[in-house]
Amino acid sequence: MVEESSLDKFNRMNLLIDFYGQLLTERQRQVLSLYYEDNLSLGEIAADFSVSRQAIFDLLKRAEKLLEGYEEKLGLVNRWQQERAKLIDMVKDMEDTLRQRDWSKMEDLVQSFSKAIEEGRE
Amino acid sequence: MVEESSLDKFNRMNLLIDFYGQLLTERQRQVLSLYYEDNLSLGEIAADFSVSRQAIFDLLKRAEKLLEGYEEKLGLVNRWQQERAKLIDMVKDMEDTLRQRDWSKMEDLVQSFSKAIEEGRE
Repeated sequence: MVEESSLDKFNRMNLLIDFYGQLLTERQRQVLSLYYEDNLSLGEIAADFSVSRQAIFDLLKRAEKLLEGYEEKLGLVNRWQQERAKLIDMVKDMEDTLRQRDWSKMEDLVQSFSKAIEEGRE
Repeated sequence: MVEESSLDKFNRMNLLIDFYGQLLTERQRQVLSLYYEDNLSLGEIAADFSVSRQAIFDLLKRAEKLLEGYEEKLGLVNRWQQERAKLIDMVKDMEDTLRQRDWSKMEDLVQSFSKAIEEGRE
């Protein structure tokens, strides 16, 4: 079922929970948080809630599907990741330019930084 | 009904549409877009859809309320605006430092820029 590496999956689910978690039910959020943030096992969560391991598994799958559905519609995690990647590239260029002590290049970088922010939504 | 200035309201609605519009129905999105993006009047939209002005008004109010409800739950527009304000401050500090030709200060700024990005979600 899990094709991507486990760590990628955990990172992704934590981002989806962070962005869209408030659209789920309290119970769904609790189980997701125990599994993906506190790293409890399905068995441990099942024991906490006095239900079967299968019930927790089903609840988890359903909640994940809902979160992925919101991201499919809104794409806000994807957009955030792309904006962040752009900023990380920018900071790397600035760090290189610091080492080169090149004011003219630094001026260009600050200008594109400024432009990149202006180009955001609105 | 509209307390904030009209321009603020239009900017805010456009941001909310941009973030959460895909959670509305096709019809709601169309009417919001005609009103807030294309700046048509209620009467013009009503004529387009062959319905009463009141029907468009009601649809618009309901769609706005839904969008505000999503923002109340998720707060993603607010978070985005805060992150953006921080970046704008940072770019202003960098522009000042460019004028001063102060490498040491620029190093500090680039470092806090880098730290600010790392501190984001994840």
